[in-house]
Amino acid sequence: MDIEAANQLAVQRMLEAQPVLVGVARALDAIPGMRPDLVLHAGPPVPWERMSGPLRGAVLGALLYEGLARDEQEAVRLASSGDVRFEPCHDHATVGPMAGVTTASMAVYVVENRTHGNRAYSNFNEGYGRVLRYGAYGADVLQRLRHLNERVAPAIGRALEHMGGLDLKALIARQLTMGDEGHNRNVAGSALFARALAPHLVRCDLDPDTLHDTLRYLADNDLAVLNPVMAACKATADAAHGIEGATVVTCMARNGTEFGIRVSGLGPRWFTGPAPTPKGLYFPGFRDEDANPDIGDSTITETVGIGAFAMAAAPAIVRFVGGTPQDAVAATLEMYEITLAENSAFGIPALDFRGTPTGIDVRKVVRTGITPRINTGIAHREPGVGQIGAGLVRPPLEPFQQAVRALVELLSR
Amino acid sequence: MDIEAANQLAVQRMLEAQPVLVGVARALDAIPGMRPDLVLHAGPPVPWERMSGPLRGAVLGALLYEGLARDEQEAVRLASSGDVRFEPCHDHATVGPMAGVTTASMAVYVVENRTHGNRAYSNFNEGYGRVLRYGAYGADVLQRLRHLNERVAPAIGRALEHMGGLDLKALIARQLTMGDEGHNRNVAGSALFARALAPHLVRCDLDPDTLHDTLRYLADNDLAVLNPVMAACKATADAAHGIEGATVVTCMARNGTEFGIRVSGLGPRWFTGPAPTPKGLYFPGFRDEDANPDIGDSTITETVGIGAFAMAAAPAIVRFVGGTPQDAVAATLEMYEITLAENSAFGIPALDFRGTPTGIDVRKVVRTGITPRINTGIAHREPGVGQIGAGLVRPPLEPFQQAVRALVELLSR
Repeated sequence: MDIEAANQLAVQRMLEAQPVLVGVARALDAIPGMRPDLVLHAGPPVPWERMSGPLRGAVLGALLYEGLARDEQEAVRLASSGDVRFEPCHDHATVGPMAGVTTASMAVYVVENRTHGNRAYSNFNEGYGRVLRYGAYGADVLQRLRHLNERVAPAIGRALEHMGGLDLKALIARQLTMGDEGHNRNVAGSALFARALAPHLVRCDLDPDTLHDTLRYLADNDLAVLNPVMAACKATADAAHGIEGATVVTCMARNGTEFGIRVSGLGPRWFTGPAPTPKGLYFPGFRDEDANPDIGDSTITETVGIGAFAMAAAPAIVRFVGGTPQDAVAATLEMYEITLAENSAFGIPALDFRGTPTGIDVRKVVRTGITPRINTGIAHREPGVGQIGAGLVRPPLEPFQQAVRALVELLSR
Repeated sequence: MDIEAANQLAVQRMLEAQPVLVGVARALDAIPGMRPDLVLHAGPPVPWERMSGPLRGAVLGALLYEGLARDEQEAVRLASSGDVRFEPCHDHATVGPMAGVTTASMAVYVVENRTHGNRAYSNFNEGYGRVLRYGAYGADVLQRLRHLNERVAPAIGRALEHMGGLDLKALIARQLTMGDEGHNRNVAGSALFARALAPHLVRCDLDPDTLHDTLRYLADNDLAVLNPVMAACKATADAAHGIEGATVVTCMARNGTEFGIRVSGLGPRWFTGPAPTPKGLYFPGFRDEDANPDIGDSTITETVGIGAFAMAAAPAIVRFVGGTPQDAVAATLEMYEITLAENSAFGIPALDFRGTPTGIDVRKVVRTGITPRINTGIAHREPGVGQIGAGLVRPPLEPFQQAVRALVELLSR
């Protein structure tokens, strides 16, 4: 087994990916293996009993949203009964930020990787305040979610159809020259997304309120493009998965309890460790003790070389933790130590358009002891509260060590 | 006369300015002193005989556009007859990019400086290709201009009214954190502008084609916000003008023949020198010899501390001339040498949010020999062609020396 050749192929698959946002669909109709009794969630597998507060909150909200439970008590009973199943989004070509909870009737973005033909999916970003993805599940949260899924999402879907799809690789490349890193900061990408959709939205015979509400949603939500970008990253990473002998990480995700990775040459197996708690800036009234351990599939951005790996493109973010622009540059430079390639399609202006560090090699992580950098939002540890801050985090080294051990076993067979 | 106190006041006026885009109007109805037989142009005063090719082309186009001439020959006769008057935009609280030609029936953005009550105006940006502002004046150019002025501009005006005005100071601050410097690069600002207008545009009872064409214009034109930004800068600079003893530059502008400045304490007098030819990157098929000397009022951006003065915010631009991100930082750092203050409202991420260098002191320019840096588009020297490139330029030192001499005379009276 030639590891170098395998890695070269895996990385090439990442670099060659051409993710295009082709439309919007109902999760049940689009996501492979989706079922009415299935709750997809962020990160590696986790049973109800071990779920953290925000993930539990989002699950309860989803059960109420789907009409599978009439009230909170019934939802708790159902969640612990075994009558609904919990599976990682990642097992279904899907990614979701924070809790990542996705159920049958929710709307999802559909991204197609034009180079390799595979598709990936992500739910819609709810914006700020009390939202399901941070574990809030009050009536206001569900009402907002319904409006988003039933009014806004189909409108965006029609606009995407009218425009013949949106090239997300080009959008990501552009937003990286505009102060975004594509994970915690997506204001430029979201503005470009809104601007591109608008002339098509008005050609879709939408009722005036839906048209207005959709443009208002796009105007007010600086994270609107995060979910399509995540799906683009998932479509990119999945193309690099399943190459025999490849030591490239194709998935990093957290469920609020554990952090887990998957490796191209090691099949569907998760390698996990305890999810760390982010270091960051809290909203007024909150502090370290309120923070849930790290949660979400949004680390799919770092997995393919943007997010914290492109921190040099977004110096404004390091201010969260009292850093300087030099720290942002240093963050990206460090990630070249554990990656196999530079993505010339994603040039970072501050590094004279050097390509983003792409393709994490588990061997390099273990050899150097440098774990991937991650940008993230911070959820309250109790269900029903929501976001309390944003910051930076490093995953534990253990999952990378486990993966290397598994590779050694595989090679010595 | 206390120069330091006068300068402090002038700079304070610049820093305190709160430019808000309040609406759109017909030039004749809005611009002070506008008349049907008046052609406003960029830069210091220049008679028809001394106008450069692109300015002449834009004048001919405007005369045809206004119906004052039926064909090119008639327009040339009229322009040289003395029956139409030529005056600088700057004399009428107005600024226009490149030729800057503005006539009675054209639409203009109206910007109000909420702190000082003064207003400023700018025409609409035509986008790319063959356009009046670069001296092109064919039937296609005029038709496009008519569509822009008669359909798109009023629609944007209604949306601005519906939203109660747009805070341009906040927009500029934001775009400077998104890779724009506000002069040559305005993609982030234009995307934010489009995104903010869209939900209001759909509430203005526009006919479907006008609505669509307006959103299409905003989606396709990365310079759409340049003209409102220029008017914001003009409203800012004008507030600092006319302070006895102040040595702060309140206007820098070029007409394609001469570069000129005005100084706060020296009244309406222009100090001029020959307009230099920019150094830059040419579109395929063009070269140095095709370039017109520098032209346009867009240097109002540098006058209040953005544009080339904020180059560190937009490292992508230095690529035009083969530079590096370090050159971009160096460009901004150099401008602190000739300015009096830092604008904390306009923080540059790459400089750890240090404020933009603001308030050019003619004394510092002369003492150091450092002339202001300028980012600019390059026009073909023949009328009717259009843009052939973009680049960087330095004005001559003479106008600054003349201004210092005038100040010395004033002081020794």
